[in-house]
Amino acid sequence: MVTIEDVAKKAGVSIATVSRVLNNANNVSEKTKLKVWKAIEELNYKPKILASALARHKEKFRVGICESKRLIDMEKEKVVPEFYTVILTALEKTGEAYGIKFCKMDLFNPSECDGYILVGGDTTKELIKEYKNLKKPFLLLDHYIPGEKVDCIVTNGFDGAYFATKYLIKKGLRKIYHIHGPLNSYGFKGRFDGYTSAMEEAGLLPKYYEYDDVKDNMSDVIDFMLRKNERPEAIFASNDITAMRVIRELKKRNIKVPKDVSVIGFDDIISAESFDPPLTTLKVFKDEMGSLAAKRIYELLVGQDLHPIMMSLFTKFIKRKSSI
Amino acid sequence: MVTIEDVAKKAGVSIATVSRVLNNANNVSEKTKLKVWKAIEELNYKPKILASALARHKEKFRVGICESKRLIDMEKEKVVPEFYTVILTALEKTGEAYGIKFCKMDLFNPSECDGYILVGGDTTKELIKEYKNLKKPFLLLDHYIPGEKVDCIVTNGFDGAYFATKYLIKKGLRKIYHIHGPLNSYGFKGRFDGYTSAMEEAGLLPKYYEYDDVKDNMSDVIDFMLRKNERPEAIFASNDITAMRVIRELKKRNIKVPKDVSVIGFDDIISAESFDPPLTTLKVFKDEMGSLAAKRIYELLVGQDLHPIMMSLFTKFIKRKSSI
Repeated sequence: MVTIEDVAKKAGVSIATVSRVLNNANNVSEKTKLKVWKAIEELNYKPKILASALARHKEKFRVGICESKRLIDMEKEKVVPEFYTVILTALEKTGEAYGIKFCKMDLFNPSECDGYILVGGDTTKELIKEYKNLKKPFLLLDHYIPGEKVDCIVTNGFDGAYFATKYLIKKGLRKIYHIHGPLNSYGFKGRFDGYTSAMEEAGLLPKYYEYDDVKDNMSDVIDFMLRKNERPEAIFASNDITAMRVIRELKKRNIKVPKDVSVIGFDDIISAESFDPPLTTLKVFKDEMGSLAAKRIYELLVGQDLHPIMMSLFTKFIKRKSSI
Repeated sequence: MVTIEDVAKKAGVSIATVSRVLNNANNVSEKTKLKVWKAIEELNYKPKILASALARHKEKFRVGICESKRLIDMEKEKVVPEFYTVILTALEKTGEAYGIKFCKMDLFNPSECDGYILVGGDTTKELIKEYKNLKKPFLLLDHYIPGEKVDCIVTNGFDGAYFATKYLIKKGLRKIYHIHGPLNSYGFKGRFDGYTSAMEEAGLLPKYYEYDDVKDNMSDVIDFMLRKNERPEAIFASNDITAMRVIRELKKRNIKVPKDVSVIGFDDIISAESFDPPLTTLKVFKDEMGSLAAKRIYELLVGQDLHPIMMSLFTKFIKRKSSI
């Protein structure tokens, strides 16, 4: 019988910490949470509360976690480092307490279930139609498709980007540029809108550049930006990976961060804290997204014709050394 | 029929505690949770998690409904016809089921309560600061303030406007104009963004005019619009009142609706259906907004440090005779 002590030992943390993670407490770092969840998974530890909840529900609902191969590959290759792993771990743990059994499946070829959670940005309008035809509740996790009126759980990119840009403006900076991913992604579009809103409100001209992470053309982007404009005082990047690439290119050109240029990312991925310099960023609440998704699909499963809503989680500004 | 009282009795805890456990609140010890889950299991209690299970909730919360005098006056004078009346009726009805007692009060001078619901668009950044100082849970109803990270419940204006504009485009129309209220209002801004997004996606040029409902300058707006451009094929107005004003001005100029120009509103106010011609519009789910607000403030009252979210309700397109 695996005990909580075994988990604590394996994860290299205290028993109290394991218990905090199991209780979804707020004062545990994401890194620690991930370590604990990994240990739980590897040891196949069944916490008593969850076990008893499970027994009570006798696995009442089967819910499909639908992911595209593209997304799974990106996770494996750490292109989207640990992002969905954290979300899905929280989703599964919370779901268990609601008597939900999850089964992973291909987004484009779902097998029969009581409900579905469509993960990430690969869901299209056409696919929504197919899922609607299944006549089972479903929701989009980390994605929104305009005009489709489907339940979804997303991060409030607008709000976070608006806050970060305002922060830089309050610090007296004026030349604040934005480097973003493709704007057909709902996530990037929201951050873009938040940045431009804050700039326009302050009477400043937004300046932005698209970065292609497949081609990895950051060197060109930075050259182009510097040729075209004065050197920026700050760059707000639409995610941490992009911010890190920005900082590397600036360093190569002997531009100091944050002395010459402040850089802010978005996501708060695990490596953001240990980066040189540690990255100022907007923390995305991945585990809360996961538990909200579990809670919402449960509501949809037991409720009747609930009105569809978008739930959009606010981010938290984490000030580190890459910005003033 | 097993009730929540039976569970509480068997577990030797209060009904409020059972409800906290069912709602996944953080402020319940693991030991207590286990006792409650065990009682639930042994009694085979099927929680309907929400309203009905909590109907007999004994613990009364006092929650302030905070409105500005301006808003109350507007309601009385039917400038915002029945809008908040419907929302607040649903709020109070649902709240009762959660054991919440509501008291109406001045937005700018709240008296002591367990929580607050700030109604409408008059809440400012500064006011948020004052409410945060009260250290009690609160949420914004029908309003959002960028960067403040406060729980809020709003209508998804973007999505509805995007849908309506797309609808007109699909019908073969190209000259689709937008007449909107002041864009510093979150509601109007979202609808504006949805309209422009759909137009730009289709490669069409957005054309928009601001209407001032205090000055009631619709006659001038329509004259200016017609002088400046070709006659539109459709006008999307940012609410029903505005759409009705548009139609009246078009009629005066012998322009037929929908034969010459399709007109679409937003809100689905009571008079939209009996208008001549009956108004095509986006229905705002006022009662669902009210009940969501009650549910959310309850979660905030019993939970601890819940992560702040924006809940944004999708609208529904209601096709009537004012548009093709």
